[in-house]
Amino acid sequence: MSLSFEIAAVTPQGGRRGRLTLPHGTVQTPVFMPVGTAATVKAVPQDVLETLNAEIILANTYHLYLRPGHELIGRAGGVHRFMSWQRPMLTDSGGFQVFSLSKLRKISPEGVEFRSHIDGSKHFFSPEHSMAVQIALGADIMMVFDECVETPASWERTRDSMGLTHDWAARSKAYWEQHRHEVPWAASFEDKHQALFGIVQGGMYPDLRKESAERLIEMDFSGYAIGGLAVGEPREVTREMIARTLEHLPSDKPRYVMGVGYPDEIEEYARMGVDMMDCVLPTRAGRHGLLFIRENPADRTSPVVRLNIKKLDNAEDQGPIDAGCGCSVCRRYSRAYLRHLFASGEPLGATLNSIHNLSFYLETMERVRGDLART
Amino acid sequence: MSLSFEIAAVTPQGGRRGRLTLPHGTVQTPVFMPVGTAATVKAVPQDVLETLNAEIILANTYHLYLRPGHELIGRAGGVHRFMSWQRPMLTDSGGFQVFSLSKLRKISPEGVEFRSHIDGSKHFFSPEHSMAVQIALGADIMMVFDECVETPASWERTRDSMGLTHDWAARSKAYWEQHRHEVPWAASFEDKHQALFGIVQGGMYPDLRKESAERLIEMDFSGYAIGGLAVGEPREVTREMIARTLEHLPSDKPRYVMGVGYPDEIEEYARMGVDMMDCVLPTRAGRHGLLFIRENPADRTSPVVRLNIKKLDNAEDQGPIDAGCGCSVCRRYSRAYLRHLFASGEPLGATLNSIHNLSFYLETMERVRGDLART
Repeated sequence: MSLSFEIAAVTPQGGRRGRLTLPHGTVQTPVFMPVGTAATVKAVPQDVLETLNAEIILANTYHLYLRPGHELIGRAGGVHRFMSWQRPMLTDSGGFQVFSLSKLRKISPEGVEFRSHIDGSKHFFSPEHSMAVQIALGADIMMVFDECVETPASWERTRDSMGLTHDWAARSKAYWEQHRHEVPWAASFEDKHQALFGIVQGGMYPDLRKESAERLIEMDFSGYAIGGLAVGEPREVTREMIARTLEHLPSDKPRYVMGVGYPDEIEEYARMGVDMMDCVLPTRAGRHGLLFIRENPADRTSPVVRLNIKKLDNAEDQGPIDAGCGCSVCRRYSRAYLRHLFASGEPLGATLNSIHNLSFYLETMERVRGDLART
Repeated sequence: MSLSFEIAAVTPQGGRRGRLTLPHGTVQTPVFMPVGTAATVKAVPQDVLETLNAEIILANTYHLYLRPGHELIGRAGGVHRFMSWQRPMLTDSGGFQVFSLSKLRKISPEGVEFRSHIDGSKHFFSPEHSMAVQIALGADIMMVFDECVETPASWERTRDSMGLTHDWAARSKAYWEQHRHEVPWAASFEDKHQALFGIVQGGMYPDLRKESAERLIEMDFSGYAIGGLAVGEPREVTREMIARTLEHLPSDKPRYVMGVGYPDEIEEYARMGVDMMDCVLPTRAGRHGLLFIRENPADRTSPVVRLNIKKLDNAEDQGPIDAGCGCSVCRRYSRAYLRHLFASGEPLGATLNSIHNLSFYLETMERVRGDLART
């Protein structure tokens, strides 16, 4: 078994309350997955993530491949053991970072040659290599290697790129089927293996999104991601592309929108039927002193507001970030103290801000799951 | 009551097992005090310090005066409330940082004019002003404002500087006696107030150390610090100056050596009769990837060794930092993971390294207290 997905309730709007069972544990869906880029959710210790009730986290294949190297992590028993995180994990394919972070890319049907953003060294990623890296990392869920088209892109350019992505998806799956027994924890988890998700591309063109979904469904993946969104397009377009793609995806498989978004977005997409989302925003915003709060702290469904902790208004504010938030930071520390930490460049500021923002995201999803279960 | 100090046992070598009772709680002595420079022990959350059983921490008057300002902290109710730390605290006088960090100092009998290391702004510290700042901060223990002589310094120069320190100590005490009711928490801790410690100077000259101790004892402080050490002199000299000063200090008052030291030093000084010590070393070394361990992990009295986590030997070492250490970092994370965090510049590395080093120091002192109690 690699993955089982049970849906307990579906709303008229298509939102689903479900449960995803993976080799390393169970995940209540819809779920927000904190991003642990280099096998660490930046500035947040693993025990705090557990206390926050993060049930699954992401790690980035591109970063771990470059440093410390997937073979080293494989020899350590996989990324779970390496970072001491025994709950489920997901790795992306490395594609997005190859296209967004690395230098001097050369794309061919075979794969992508690129230079490391760290030291300029030359590397090559093919679908097969991405799978080999992800198998060594050993996350519960792996993603196929895909091309991320630049935005905006013409219909023709998007169609051609999508074609490459489909070829690469088929090659990813073929490699995975032959090599999945090589996962470092194979011996300790008998009869369990990693799951592989396909990624629907097609840019901002609904007809291409439909075609991409159909092609991937023919290949039969354990779950389907919607890729190539939140890359600069207006939010209404993101929303429409998600809606127009969801309608073509099988209802019994998990659906994952990659790289979104603001707290109100993840709530909206969850209510539309998206089961999984991830984003660096809560931690990255936290490190920049931006904190998510509710406009009316007593009403957790009131609009989301961004508090800029460095503003002078906070200098003598003895209240918490968000009076309606029950996180360990809001229970203990004042805005005045958090502003001081941020203004002084103290590392504790990044940690506490990130914890609050992650709690805000996870709390939002918990509330949404409650709503979906009741309908 | 500002402070009570009870001694339960004294060894033939002069080591004392004691208990210090302060407005915010009780401290088992001899004690090591983690340094929370800007009202945060760098990279370590307050709840972790509590779990590590840190009973008293230090904050720096110079840093908090400049940022966020002592008046702001006073209006917040003092540094305990400001940083949400309800256990005892100690503030230094600002003197050491004025002399080591600031620029363009002008010293007169009245006080010291200096420029901020942050923005170059001009400031003036006198004994009275240091007291006013420390009363606003409201730590359980304050230190008199002293001049720190450069090292090496001639006997004459050291004697003159010491004379200034004594004048300033008397002025510090006079100001404190008139103003101690102004502490921000005066209303909530009836009949309790801050304690003031004198600081013995005298450089590397035993006759001046003796004279300094005698002069300060005449002024009658709640405790006595030995200042001006660990400023570059050989360790044998530090040890001798401590020994030659301790013999002149009253046995019924707490004795505090400021700014020391390595784990084997704090153990040695505690066994000689020093009751309190503080040092930035565990956290600073941690941020630089230097970890304290025992040469033989199973023998906690074996020599202290420094592990440089970034060394290649650690890259695939799945063992803990120190197999005999019971801290949360050694129980959960491998050297390989900590090396990866450090090499990748991940903030979690500084946090976990600092936690281990603090635990190492606090565990060392706990063992020493056990030994002192048994003799």
